[in-house]
Formats: sequence, C-alpha cells, structure tokens
Amino acid sequence: MATTASTALMTDQYELTMLQAALADGTADRRCTFEVFARRLPSGRRYGVVAGTARVVDAIADFVFDEQTLERLAPILDERTREHLAGWRFDGEVDGYPEGELFFPDSPILSVSGSFASAVILETLVLSILNHDCAIASAAARMVTAADGRPLIEMGSRRTHEEAAVASARAAYLAGFGTTSNLMAGRRYGIPTGGTAAHAFTLLHDSEEAAFASQVAAMGAGTTLLVDTYDITQGIATAVEVAGTGLGAVRIDSGDLGVLARAARQQLDELGATSTKVVLSGDLDEYAIAALRAEPVDIYGVGTSLVTGSGAPTAGMVYKLVEVDGRPVAKRSLNKASHGGAKTALRRHKPSGTATEEIVFLKAGPAPEPEDGDRVLPVPLLRAGAPVDGLPDLTAARERLRAALVTLPWEGLTLSEGDPAIPTTLLGP
Amino acid sequence: MATTASTALMTDQYELTMLQAALADGTADRRCTFEVFARRLPSGRRYGVVAGTARVVDAIADFVFDEQTLERLAPILDERTREHLAGWRFDGEVDGYPEGELFFPDSPILSVSGSFASAVILETLVLSILNHDCAIASAAARMVTAADGRPLIEMGSRRTHEEAAVASARAAYLAGFGTTSNLMAGRRYGIPTGGTAAHAFTLLHDSEEAAFASQVAAMGAGTTLLVDTYDITQGIATAVEVAGTGLGAVRIDSGDLGVLARAARQQLDELGATSTKVVLSGDLDEYAIAALRAEPVDIYGVGTSLVTGSGAPTAGMVYKLVEVDGRPVAKRSLNKASHGGAKTALRRHKPSGTATEEIVFLKAGPAPEPEDGDRVLPVPLLRAGAPVDGLPDLTAARERLRAALVTLPWEGLTLSEGDPAIPTTLLGP
Repeated sequence: MATTASTALMTDQYELTMLQAALADGTADRRCTFEVFARRLPSGRRYGVVAGTARVVDAIADFVFDEQTLERLAPILDERTREHLAGWRFDGEVDGYPEGELFFPDSPILSVSGSFASAVILETLVLSILNHDCAIASAAARMVTAADGRPLIEMGSRRTHEEAAVASARAAYLAGFGTTSNLMAGRRYGIPTGGTAAHAFTLLHDSEEAAFASQVAAMGAGTTLLVDTYDITQGIATAVEVAGTGLGAVRIDSGDLGVLARAARQQLDELGATSTKVVLSGDLDEYAIAALRAEPVDIYGVGTSLVTGSGAPTAGMVYKLVEVDGRPVAKRSLNKASHGGAKTALRRHKPSGTATEEIVFLKAGPAPEPEDGDRVLPVPLLRAGAPVDGLPDLTAARERLRAALVTLPWEGLTLSEGDPAIPTTLLGP
Repeated sequence: MATTASTALMTDQYELTMLQAALADGTADRRCTFEVFARRLPSGRRYGVVAGTARVVDAIADFVFDEQTLERLAPILDERTREHLAGWRFDGEVDGYPEGELFFPDSPILSVSGSFASAVILETLVLSILNHDCAIASAAARMVTAADGRPLIEMGSRRTHEEAAVASARAAYLAGFGTTSNLMAGRRYGIPTGGTAAHAFTLLHDSEEAAFASQVAAMGAGTTLLVDTYDITQGIATAVEVAGTGLGAVRIDSGDLGVLARAARQQLDELGATSTKVVLSGDLDEYAIAALRAEPVDIYGVGTSLVTGSGAPTAGMVYKLVEVDGRPVAKRSLNKASHGGAKTALRRHKPSGTATEEIVFLKAGPAPEPEDGDRVLPVPLLRAGAPVDGLPDLTAARERLRAALVTLPWEGLTLSEGDPAIPTTLLGP
C-alpha cells in the first residue's frame, strides 16, 4: 500500500543522480523536450488506445519532495540537489493525445517540455502510468469490439496488483466496459460498480436453495444468481423457483460456455423466465468473446485476460529526449535509434471518414500539405506546470474512442494478427 | 495513486453484498476456512515462489471501514451491514507458507479462518497481492538461477503500474536480485537502490565526453557509464579516458549483447581497465541471461520481463471456501472442482535433502506417516486478528528461497518446460 501521497519516489534512482550531475555542470536549465511513444504495437495488434493521461496529470501535481522524503535521499543526493528539490514543482508544458485516442507505432502520445531538471525526473512515473493503462485499455477495446454491443463487466481485480486493479478498472471503463467489480474504482473515478455473489456464498449455506433465497431476500429478484456451484441445470431450476420468472440473471463461470449458454437460455425460456439474462464469466478473452457471438449471451464478465493486457501487459512506451535548446537530439546506436526533434502528429482521413495515415512531423517543420479530414492529435495538458482548464473526463474519453474506432479501415477491427490498421509516416527535416 | 490509506475498498463489490445477505440470514457467524492455492503452475514452470505474505499481513491491518468509506457504500449496502463494518476489524486466524518458500499445484499457501463475515471480505485484496507478488518472484527466481551467481539489478518500474513497480522490486529482491532502481522500494522496504544515468544525460550534453566527465565529477570514477548512445567502441574509449582505469562499470543497453560484452571486456582489458565491470541490460529475460552465461558479463539489469512475470503476469491463485462449521465444502461443477476441508501440507525429502513430494492433507486427518526429512510448510501469521510475533523479514525470505531451491531435483532448476519439480499428493479422507 502507498504510505505517502507523494509520487516523487516512484522514480528510478538514476533520474535524480542525473539531475545532480546536471545541476553541478550547468546543463540542468537547458530547455528540453521528451516524447513518449511506442516503437511498435504488441505482436499482431492493429491499434493501441491512449489511457492514463489524466492519471499522469494528477501524478505530476503530487510529484513533490517533502522533508521526510528528502531526508531519505541524503545518502544518494548532495545538499544542493536536495535543496533544489525541496522547493521544486513541475513548471513545464505537457501536450498529449487525449485519452481514448488511438495510437500507432511512433505516435507521440505525450510530450513533456521544460528544463532538463524538471522534465527528466518525471520519466519513470509517466511511463509506469501510460505503459500500464494503455496496455489494459488496448486489450479492453478489442474485447468491447468482440462483444459487439453486449455489455462487459470488469472483474479482474484479484488477478493483478491491488492498485493496478483500480487503474485497470478505469482503463476498461474508458475502453467501453460497462461496470467494474472494484469498489475503489467506483469511489475514485465514479465508475459504475456491480457484483452479487460468489460460489462461497452457496457453499456457506445448507443448500443452494437456501443460498439463493437469502440472496433474493437481500438483493431482490433482479439479482444475478451464480448457478454453477453444483449441477447447472438444477441450479437454474432452483434459481427460477426461488426468484420467480422476474429473476434478473443467471451467471455461469465454468465449463463449455457456448453450450451452457444455449442450454441455459432454452431452460430459462421454458421456465417462463424469458427476460432473465445469461451472464458468462470464466477465463474469457477477446477470442472467446468473439466465439460466443452467435450464442444467447447477454453480458460478459472478464477478469484475468483484461488486467494482464491479454498477452501484452505493458504497452512498450518509451520516454525519449528529442530536443535540447532547440537542437534535435537522438540516440544513434543500432536497433534503438530514435528520431530527434520535437514532434506533433495528425491523422489523415478519406472523405468517407476512414483513417488512412498517421503523420508524425517536426513542430519546426516541414508540415504536411493540409488536406480536408486532417485532424491534429495532441492537445495541451499542462501549461506552466498547471493543468489546462476543461481537460476531458472519462465519459469524453469513452466517446472519443468509440468515434475513433469507427474511422478505422474494417481490417483494423478484426482480432486476427496483422499490421497496424494505418501506417505511420515520419516526416523528416 | 492511493488517495486513502485504508485498503477496504480494494475489494470486489460482491464480497460486501454476500456479507449483507449473510448478516440478514444468520449465516454470517458460521466458522469458515478459506484457502489460497494455484490449481496449476504457469505452462512449463517447475515451481513457484511464495511472495507477498508480509504485504497481506499489513493490508489486513489497514482493512478498516472509516466513516467516509461507509458513506460511499450507502447506495450498495443497508444500514445494518454498514454498522457491522463500522466497528469491524479482522479477528480471525491466518496461516501460510512463509515468504521465499516454494509452492506447487494445490499447495495451500494461505488459509484464512474466522467467521464468514470476517473471512469472505478479504478475498480480493489477498488474491491481488499474492497473485502479483508470487508471479514476479517466481519469474525472478528463474532469472537468479540463470545468472548463476552474477548480480541482478531490478529496473522494470517504468513497464508496470507505479505501485506494482514497488511491489515488483520487493518480490525481485526476495527472489535474490541485488538492487532495484525504484526509490520507493528503497524507502518502504529498505531494499538497496542503484542507478546512474540514462541516454538522455548523454544527449543533453554537447558531447559524450562532456556527459561522462560530468557524471564522474558528480558520482566519482566508481560510477557506471552508459556507453551505447552513439558508437559503443568510441563510448568505451571515452569512458576510460575520462574516468581512468578505475572506472566502476560500463553499461550496454542494446544490440547483440553477447558479442558486445566480449568486445567490451577485451577493449577494457586492453585499456588497462581490468577491474571495470560490464553491465548488460535491454530486454533481458531468464533465457537471454542463461545464453550469456559464457560471456564476460558482471551484472545484469532486468526490466520488462521481470515486472510482467516473464510470460506469466499472474500466479493463478484462487481463494476457496473449504470448510463451514467443521464441515468440508467444495464446488462440484466440471473443470473447477475443489477439494473440501481445511488442509495443511508438508514437503518430503530424501535423506540427501532432495525434495520428493508435496503432501497436502486434511488438518482433521488422516496425516501421512511421518518420515525423517518431512517439513511442515504453513506457519502461523495472524492470531485473533493480530500478527504473530517475529514474522520473518525479507532477508529471512531470501535465505529461505535460496535454501529451498537447493532441495529441488536438478531438473527442477532447468529453464526448459516440464512438469512441476515434485508431484503434489492430495490425501483424501
């Protein structure tokens, strides 16, 4: 658990030792721009989803070095550096793709400008947030597409670190999930929460019937009864017997879910519970969800695969210094060469609205010839260290993603492996 | 970021709705035992490493419902339930495998006993911590084995959620890593921290030489210089020129690391820097580390693969109700059947000390015939809700793991895929 509200130590030590050396040699005040981007998408993925930006903005506000923290840094940092940090608050500029926007290889999803001293020390925290949240949102968006309009419940908290669980619930909601099981996500971000009972509740009671009766008494007939603790057919019969045909839903958490969903639907209909919903959970991922598209499923509950990014638990974002005092800089070693210069990006679209290309270009120019349907992607996030007014909220991010996905060429929405949905063009000087 | 020190909302909503129904129907006081175990190890893995137990003990102490929290739960929980929670603190018993112990399929690594009301609501938080920390420690232990005595630096903070990063650093240290880059892990857990400079520091300066000179001035010649921003051979030459032959280390973060390590070693030796160490980083995992065993590497830095559990980001732990008022209970549905009854476990060893079998058996008996070399695995962790005196610390956990790995049959320490290193025997009634 976090034992301090300051985020300043969620940092690699080398950020602060670099600061110390730069303060000593006079380069700490050089005006720098760092950019966050992914060199590539996870294998076979067609797009990524930007998430975590609002958490970055909050975390920068909490990035302060209190006295106690600075005392603990005394073995590592000299007095001059600790004095610098004592009064320091981030005073630079941050621009970025808004949450819910798509990204592709080399999309500059965040740029941080300020003195080297100010911009370098944010690296670890910025990357932690964006690498995690983008990974979860990118996986979640594929699940939402696969569910084809059916609602999804995020229920993966137990499969990931307890704080990552809260951020995962947020990223999933951003990507179109309807609810989460995580109460802290409800409290912190206002995300709708849900949940009724686990197998333990049935096992606690002397019979399944007693457990169902208790649950219906406490939560009403509109509740969801978990029917697979013992025999599912018997469980459904008991559920309708106890709750009546107004039963909200039955949940099945194990077994051959497609077969079971069909059988459950038929049984419910035969019992007259025609409006009772069928909720499926149990090791679902985007492929399993897609495979269930023809089955009578009403709601999916997704856990492990969501919070682990469905095979891609980190988004591959890096934080690279691209400009110093107006001069482009770049690492030149093999394999990991970067592109120097502060950049921005636009997305090009056909007249029909279909996206065709991500164009990344230097702010200093040359800019691409403007075309109808071009959309500039980064927006201002912080100015002089303060969040700009009217930053988009989670609801806006959900809308943005929904709108952005519609612009993808059709093959970009398939689950099959392939190239990014649109190419990225890097315009050089 | 955590905005409250209470862990009580890091919980799935259904834990609390079950509590409400059980309070209403009179089953809330039934004496229950829940057990935490993994049905299987990640594909091909030979063993798992228990980690996070001490974090669970701390989190239970912080699991309290303050007034503000209870107000937020008003739309979900009735007044009776909120009143129950207002005065509630966990007052049950927890036993578990100590941190650093090995686990295998069905090993009961934690058991929680108390009233249903007390034990059920801990599920999500207990699993979040154990699923995360065991996953990281299990991957880390394989890397430590692969490194064959060479030190490892944990530097993955930027690739995972900012709080998961701190827990990952802890799990890696527990598993035998020497240091972490994460300053919060240093502060919170006393783990040794390290780190010197990134490529950005070189790019900030007018030349590599200026950057190295600044770093040596600030951190001394014993520092580690990152030599792959431009040309590595030139970088090493400059590094020794600037720092002298007493240079602490050079770090290479990209490229064909084996070839580069050999070339670096040779160049350093030719320059007279025979004691300067070679640090390798850049997408290392246990396989890459093993492949570098014949090369002149002194230290490995590991990031992404560590904090993502090297392909297994969650440990597959579940929290199952196994006993109610002394009566064994178990889910009976297909695929996910559990074994009822409160269990304990011992590990059997040959006279040579080699482990042969994990025996899981009911506390109510029958127990296996005792043999020399049997070792009972669970230890008491909480009694009447309070941590027992003298719980082992991180240093003890490191020692325990080191000792436990020595007992594995040799094939259990190989990286190749296979069955668990020892079989688990479940003794039934």
